[in-house]
Amino acid sequence: MKAVNAEIITVGDEILFGQIVDTNSAWMGTELTRIGIRVKQITSISDNADHIVAALDAAKTRADIILITGGLGPTKDDLTKNVLSDYFHTELKLHEPSLADVAALFKARGYELTELNRQQAFLPASCTPVRNVLGTAPGMWFEEEDKVFVSMPGVPFEMKRMMEDIVLPQLKAYFKTPEIIHKVVQTVGIPESMLADKLEDWELSLPPHIRLAYLPHLGGVRLRLTGTGENKAQLEQELEQEVTKLTDLIPKAIFAYGEVPLEEALGQQLKERKLTIATAESCTGGYLAHKITSIPGSSAYYMGSVIAYHNEVKIRELLVKPDTLQQHGAVSEATVREMAENVRAKFKTDIGVATSGIAGPEGGTAEKPVGTIWIAYADENGTKAKLLQYNKNRQLNIEYTALAVLNLIRQSLNTAVEE
Amino acid sequence: MKAVNAEIITVGDEILFGQIVDTNSAWMGTELTRIGIRVKQITSISDNADHIVAALDAAKTRADIILITGGLGPTKDDLTKNVLSDYFHTELKLHEPSLADVAALFKARGYELTELNRQQAFLPASCTPVRNVLGTAPGMWFEEEDKVFVSMPGVPFEMKRMMEDIVLPQLKAYFKTPEIIHKVVQTVGIPESMLADKLEDWELSLPPHIRLAYLPHLGGVRLRLTGTGENKAQLEQELEQEVTKLTDLIPKAIFAYGEVPLEEALGQQLKERKLTIATAESCTGGYLAHKITSIPGSSAYYMGSVIAYHNEVKIRELLVKPDTLQQHGAVSEATVREMAENVRAKFKTDIGVATSGIAGPEGGTAEKPVGTIWIAYADENGTKAKLLQYNKNRQLNIEYTALAVLNLIRQSLNTAVEE
Repeated sequence: MKAVNAEIITVGDEILFGQIVDTNSAWMGTELTRIGIRVKQITSISDNADHIVAALDAAKTRADIILITGGLGPTKDDLTKNVLSDYFHTELKLHEPSLADVAALFKARGYELTELNRQQAFLPASCTPVRNVLGTAPGMWFEEEDKVFVSMPGVPFEMKRMMEDIVLPQLKAYFKTPEIIHKVVQTVGIPESMLADKLEDWELSLPPHIRLAYLPHLGGVRLRLTGTGENKAQLEQELEQEVTKLTDLIPKAIFAYGEVPLEEALGQQLKERKLTIATAESCTGGYLAHKITSIPGSSAYYMGSVIAYHNEVKIRELLVKPDTLQQHGAVSEATVREMAENVRAKFKTDIGVATSGIAGPEGGTAEKPVGTIWIAYADENGTKAKLLQYNKNRQLNIEYTALAVLNLIRQSLNTAVEE
Repeated sequence: MKAVNAEIITVGDEILFGQIVDTNSAWMGTELTRIGIRVKQITSISDNADHIVAALDAAKTRADIILITGGLGPTKDDLTKNVLSDYFHTELKLHEPSLADVAALFKARGYELTELNRQQAFLPASCTPVRNVLGTAPGMWFEEEDKVFVSMPGVPFEMKRMMEDIVLPQLKAYFKTPEIIHKVVQTVGIPESMLADKLEDWELSLPPHIRLAYLPHLGGVRLRLTGTGENKAQLEQELEQEVTKLTDLIPKAIFAYGEVPLEEALGQQLKERKLTIATAESCTGGYLAHKITSIPGSSAYYMGSVIAYHNEVKIRELLVKPDTLQQHGAVSEATVREMAENVRAKFKTDIGVATSGIAGPEGGTAEKPVGTIWIAYADENGTKAKLLQYNKNRQLNIEYTALAVLNLIRQSLNTAVEE
């Protein structure tokens, strides 16, 4: 079966100048991948007729499907429709159903239909119009030598509705697409290069229709297996077998299967085991609590936090001994252990965790430079602390520390189970 | 003066498959625009040697600068370095300073240097290496017939640091770009369309070499004036005059000039007036504290927080009366007032603020739907509370609420001054 390839062309200066982030293409990429269409290229260009034509010419040498978004507005700088009309050697013609849609939309909003908007219902004679129920610019479907070109508005919710209702189903019907299945395995705590070392032999043994991708991000490395084939059930089975082999190679690094962030996987585990948790934060300043509470339903296991940014608060609210602070300083194993234990006692939770460190850019010393951070975990079995040494900027030191705490909780929960 | 054009090429299947949103290109577009370089095209392609070569060939017909991100990792699917080496007819050679950087990075993290990472220090002989202080893949600067090609990692913070420290200054020096001055005026609390109404006459009166851009973001609307010309001093003076006119039109909406986020402008004000603040958070779950403590030096005015995710914590730690919770519920004016007042008393600060609401997606009722949020501000003059009604997703409800609290603090501080 021949692979079906698509390209996405987005038209408009606002993406090139960085005034908006192109989230449309990622969404389209996800949806096309899901139905077995492979995106070969995404191209963002300005509202310029020659550039649009050049992009179309180049895209059709590589792809079977060319999806164009943007440049369909009613103003002078929106050129896409006229360019497409010329490109396909046709001319604009009033499309009555589109005019009726636009008129109805304006009526509903209580505005009078302007001449500019009326012109939006003039479409290239050779295209099949794609209905836009949420806006004034209809989409356009062209076919040329077994290739399909679809032009859609750049407004995200209009484009998405059009894709879901009309374009994706029609593409699926028009092209006989192969089955494509993805499996994502989430890892944390092992850098990409070390993972690659551990997985090398297995990766080399993969059949050609199954590919592995390393997707590193701040929260760890996502491993994605992509299988392409004819028989969905067989492919599913093959991928499951590979995931099992993979799991055997790095059992301790995997925290979830699928698109699940660490804080969600952890929350799931806490909920299942009916455990509660509280946090005591100094250098992370609320970010750890924010990560935990970003998960819907986290109130089932998360009780709360004391953010003790000032030493006085550490003493008064977290009952850290003044002696400890005096002797070891706020950024010390002794302090962070007391913080974790005391917040656990104070909030009457099963688990207490704590952070104390120098996030920077100021506050570092020769002995404790910026990026020196202590974290601790306390439960009924005792307390453990860990020293982190980062050399990053303030924001990253905060984010990495929160991640390290989440991973420490995960490791502690799983060790307890294994023992 | 000739315009300088750039193109951005991002390499990696994860963007094409929609697994990550390409935020790098928007950031680069913004930064290049800022120094007077125009982005003509952004192209995302897969890790495929032929495709990378085709993209480079096409880009150099249109642009003076070609910036490539991604594909520099240590694993097999990362091809960019080898492709560039062939493209520029050179070969890989060990670059000792890069090896030293990688080795130091691994030592700091306590890992052993692997052969894969050692290979990252082998660079095309004809390039000028671009130092990566935050990761293992160095960047590469190539020059060919007055065109510049720069390859950088796709990891956002590594790429950004490289751009800021090295690439942008060197591009500015290499290409003679016109003088471009930007003035940013930060506003909060007035929607874009209303701002545009208030500013229309003034905007129409701007000379053609000064342009206004509305840059709405979650924290408000940034107004950016961009002046282009030959004489820097004169341009600077003209822009200052326009900023003064602008300020007279919307004095209360402006919280800062320049790239200063609201939490930083606020921190500055608190520091200058020697005021301290504490927070009591329910629905924002630490995000408000995180925003405040994301500013270096915030320990000068920020004492800490109680995150009272559970009602018990509200009672025990924030001394909210059980009666209040019983009668009015956790999401109520009465509760949030007590939270703000009590955290102020508990932490002995000048100001106490609090949040309590339903962030969603669950927990809403007919009377208090998701997005119903109360915030409060307390100082020596008394307490004020405000009801927010959002209809957004969990993350946005949290972020908007934190912003609303920061704006409430700002308004309260400034009203006090004016009175």
